[in-house]
Amino acid sequence: MKYAIIAIGDELLIGQVTDTNSGWIARNMSVHGWELCSVRVVSDDRAAITGAIEAAFKECDVVLTTGGLGPTKDDITKSTLCEYFGGEMRLDETTLANVMEVVEKRHLKLNDYTRNQAYVPSTCEVVQNKVGTAPILWFRKDEKLLVSMPGVPFEMQHMMEEVLIPKLVAAYATDQHIEHRTFIVIDIIESLLAMHLDGFEKELPSFIHLAYLPTPGLIRLRLSGNSCDARQLRECMDEQAAKLRHLLGEKLICEEDLPLAKILGNKLLEKGLTVSTAESCTGGNIAHEITRFAGSSSYFNGAVVSYANEVKQNVLKVSLDDIIAHGVVSQPVVEQMVKGACEALNTDCAISTSGIAGPGGAVPGKPVGTVWMAAKMGDRIVSQCCHFPGDRERVINRATNEAIKLLIKLLNE
Amino acid sequence: MKYAIIAIGDELLIGQVTDTNSGWIARNMSVHGWELCSVRVVSDDRAAITGAIEAAFKECDVVLTTGGLGPTKDDITKSTLCEYFGGEMRLDETTLANVMEVVEKRHLKLNDYTRNQAYVPSTCEVVQNKVGTAPILWFRKDEKLLVSMPGVPFEMQHMMEEVLIPKLVAAYATDQHIEHRTFIVIDIIESLLAMHLDGFEKELPSFIHLAYLPTPGLIRLRLSGNSCDARQLRECMDEQAAKLRHLLGEKLICEEDLPLAKILGNKLLEKGLTVSTAESCTGGNIAHEITRFAGSSSYFNGAVVSYANEVKQNVLKVSLDDIIAHGVVSQPVVEQMVKGACEALNTDCAISTSGIAGPGGAVPGKPVGTVWMAAKMGDRIVSQCCHFPGDRERVINRATNEAIKLLIKLLNE
Repeated sequence: MKYAIIAIGDELLIGQVTDTNSGWIARNMSVHGWELCSVRVVSDDRAAITGAIEAAFKECDVVLTTGGLGPTKDDITKSTLCEYFGGEMRLDETTLANVMEVVEKRHLKLNDYTRNQAYVPSTCEVVQNKVGTAPILWFRKDEKLLVSMPGVPFEMQHMMEEVLIPKLVAAYATDQHIEHRTFIVIDIIESLLAMHLDGFEKELPSFIHLAYLPTPGLIRLRLSGNSCDARQLRECMDEQAAKLRHLLGEKLICEEDLPLAKILGNKLLEKGLTVSTAESCTGGNIAHEITRFAGSSSYFNGAVVSYANEVKQNVLKVSLDDIIAHGVVSQPVVEQMVKGACEALNTDCAISTSGIAGPGGAVPGKPVGTVWMAAKMGDRIVSQCCHFPGDRERVINRATNEAIKLLIKLLNE
Repeated sequence: MKYAIIAIGDELLIGQVTDTNSGWIARNMSVHGWELCSVRVVSDDRAAITGAIEAAFKECDVVLTTGGLGPTKDDITKSTLCEYFGGEMRLDETTLANVMEVVEKRHLKLNDYTRNQAYVPSTCEVVQNKVGTAPILWFRKDEKLLVSMPGVPFEMQHMMEEVLIPKLVAAYATDQHIEHRTFIVIDIIESLLAMHLDGFEKELPSFIHLAYLPTPGLIRLRLSGNSCDARQLRECMDEQAAKLRHLLGEKLICEEDLPLAKILGNKLLEKGLTVSTAESCTGGNIAHEITRFAGSSSYFNGAVVSYANEVKQNVLKVSLDDIIAHGVVSQPVVEQMVKGACEALNTDCAISTSGIAGPGGAVPGKPVGTVWMAAKMGDRIVSQCCHFPGDRERVINRATNEAIKLLIKLLNE
């Protein structure tokens, strides 16, 4: 089933909020074979919203909208949809009861603004929002369906999972199957990989194609297939995946679309090892990446973020002589940091970083973007120096990824 | 000047990559009075790209596109634009020289794919991309302008800052001024704030309006004005800002659009204090938030992420008896954690968290989302228990924000 998304809100167009809803919806609908044609981001403006709906309905029969359902004056999606689909705004008692329930759960009282949330267009079906005050509006007109959802990611996600995805899938039962397979590849640049896979790509059947999704430090290869015959599709995908696996060799580190920190976590679990981090320039970001995943407490003991040199000395037992002789951004320091982390936090493995994230802090011979990093597993320590281009955020993110990769490779050896 | 953005790439529509480029462009163009009308996200498909260009040109004269300029087969933006604007693909020697320079800087060699990057439509002006291999294409046709930029955020940002923003602003000199003022408000919910500001909002002049941008834990209020008379606009905005400031009272914590961690950093700098963190359920995210900002090393000494209980005991000196008596998610534990952090990391202030981020880990009386947190400044310690709804990511982010706010409020007292 093809569908379009319209994300509504001035805050999206002045760049104060990033639309992460569309990506979430795309990921969660694609497993049901739903294909997102386009996303339109428009302002809280009647003409803009109506124009986007008309354009979207020219592309496909189903349109999902997010946002513009708040209780304040700048949110006009509901009244615009009422005008577009016809009918009038009416106070819906069931919705009012639900709004009151949500408001009470938050230990608040109903006021004029929240009460207004219970007014809904007379021409739509209402799906009660169990985790927020904005009701979900389900409009059907001829062959077309429009579902208006709140823009708050948590509310949208909860309601999609609990009610809307099953309801949408049931409304458009289909025999078309889509399959995606993802391959995480490291230590090769996109253009060289593309040359390496040129023959493979040319020989792919017409209903399977290959896409390159390079991100700093790794390339995700996505093999996508589309067919009415689920079994044949599965077999063909298996066959092509086997070929690709063989061609990628040891540059392939994972066959699931997982972030690096999760790949690391799975490898640690598999080997029954624990990890800690000792972070200077990454400032806790490696620990944060590792602990984003449920279950990380079974392999992650903790971290020491040693921004100040005295923390490197006192907590991680880095030698002051080495700091003076080699500087804090140096091989001896990051190697002592991983040792210190394993000791202080009692782990089998550790990752460390020390670098210059910028924009200030450069010293002769060590420009902004210079990062030393080390990984330790048992008695083995590996370390490397990287030079990352870009701003502070990019240096921190690249250093985080490269340091995690360093330990993944050590675990793979 | 009104403009539209088209973000191109299959990866955006299957939700593997989030479009952060449009927000960045919006923020950086708005200071020059440029107003983003809409964003269209489309796939790597000729008809989709062409359709989006036509629709965007109906709305405005300037269209910026990002993405689809990579060296691989799935990227077809360049050839699609060549068809759309007419002309033919030609090898451009200046571009080839630039591509070779970029490739050499990366210590790589030119290959067929990177060499193809030097083919450009004969009908556009080429702006050399100094940090990537995809040239920027500048098409002018009648009253219309289309600028095609790479989708890699770092490349797009670098080229916008260095070349494209000045070039765009010069191409459309204007006398229209836009001003935004942002007010960060805490400890009040959106609907109550809206009631409180109802009179103020009704009395605003027609060219100034107020928008609510609620995010978990705070509300950003944005006052926006639009006028040809810069001085009059400035004066009116000052007047309305003063009224709003008065109405908000101590719920207003900042009048700049800054993240909480930066607001905290500025307050610490102002008072000449240092900070550390002791994190359990937030897993290093508070430290990461603080260190995202340049200059944080002057007030941030470090962090201890104490996922394992032995780290809480050994490094932060939390009493085992209290862990046994009250559990790790408890007031005594988070209060000992801030003391331990100040001591181990030698700081004036500290923030701590201990909670159940989920989805597992709930214990009787402490459901998923329960987080104890404390803040310490000198001899004063404050602590609180929060119950956050939502998934692991949401609990971690909410706990991070609330813990940072706890110290901000303590510093404000």
